[in-house]
Amino acid sequence: MARIGVVGGTGALGKAIARRLVKGGHEVTIGSRSSEGALTAAAEIGAAHGAVNAAAAADKDVVIVTVPYSAHAGTFAQIKDAVGSAIVVDTTVPLAPPKVMRVQLPTAGSAAIEALGYLAEDARLVSAFHSVAAHKLIEDIKIDCDVLVFSDDVEARNVVVGLCGDMDLRGLSGGALVNSAAAEALTSILIYMNKTYGADGAGIRFTGLTKAPAIP
Amino acid sequence: MARIGVVGGTGALGKAIARRLVKGGHEVTIGSRSSEGALTAAAEIGAAHGAVNAAAAADKDVVIVTVPYSAHAGTFAQIKDAVGSAIVVDTTVPLAPPKVMRVQLPTAGSAAIEALGYLAEDARLVSAFHSVAAHKLIEDIKIDCDVLVFSDDVEARNVVVGLCGDMDLRGLSGGALVNSAAAEALTSILIYMNKTYGADGAGIRFTGLTKAPAIP
Repeated sequence: MARIGVVGGTGALGKAIARRLVKGGHEVTIGSRSSEGALTAAAEIGAAHGAVNAAAAADKDVVIVTVPYSAHAGTFAQIKDAVGSAIVVDTTVPLAPPKVMRVQLPTAGSAAIEALGYLAEDARLVSAFHSVAAHKLIEDIKIDCDVLVFSDDVEARNVVVGLCGDMDLRGLSGGALVNSAAAEALTSILIYMNKTYGADGAGIRFTGLTKAPAIP
Repeated sequence: MARIGVVGGTGALGKAIARRLVKGGHEVTIGSRSSEGALTAAAEIGAAHGAVNAAAAADKDVVIVTVPYSAHAGTFAQIKDAVGSAIVVDTTVPLAPPKVMRVQLPTAGSAAIEALGYLAEDARLVSAFHSVAAHKLIEDIKIDCDVLVFSDDVEARNVVVGLCGDMDLRGLSGGALVNSAAAEALTSILIYMNKTYGADGAGIRFTGLTKAPAIP
């Protein structure tokens, strides 16, 4: 059982991740800009606690950030001093509305590399959960999509791959944090495919892997 | 039946693509820096013709460029004046050896966007075939990997999706040319997964698409 804070946890992706982590046996705190919103969302999905973002990020094993790109820098500023030695998981996709079907990676290369700059030098940053459709993840259904997990901290990456398993998802290491660009870019392709190929939450599966975790 | 030139067609990917196009009933010309090498490769895979790259790119319906990133700009310079109104398909992945498991996209965003700058203004550029393992593609086996196809020219994109079908592959439109960054970046992830998860040519499949071409 890990103590996990889900910052921005009142949004669709945050609530979905938090709900699956609760079901997986973890002690989850929902974070939001207002403690009222956090407490409401926590009650809704059965999380133990709700708090403002900075409080939700304090004294945790893992802090998961689930905010739109427009709130990316601001949210990391809120939690920077609180996270300490926790593993920080960034789920942010650098979409630039209204053209969300176009890949528009930031100059730094990826939102994950930007996040690295927002945290203290010894931060344990992981990037993950970009490709999973939130409205499917919140349901009690099998998700036909692998979760790519990136980090330069191998131990932290393995912890998040393990959390994916607890959430009934197949997590796969995608290598170094810089590789997060691939998953962030892919999200625009998936949005495009939803429209083009009549999908309700298109996903991806990696094929040919003989030593990967089994698909749950 | 289309007239197709495969520029850089003596390499592993070029030969594999050419061979499948020949089997799919197309008239294929292998291009290389030397006509001798081109003729040898053409004989090997049953292509109709072999020629130097510029000649292989002339008077074609489709010209497919299959060269390593180090030869990207130079090869496009060789064929720029020859391609005319042909559809030009760039397969180049901007790998930066020796760190091929790290995503290192060029400043322009992708090799495809760079290629756009190498061609005439009215060029019909498509980007595709990044994620397929050449050593599998050359065999007579089912390829468990979707081919992503990107272009701002919808008609040209559809032609290449059709060619994928002729090659016994599922081609999927990935949208605008700028989205090629996702497939180019993904290639480093696949190389990483080959090593990490014991794969001999890891691939990807898109899931949940109700209106996509059937998997052949």
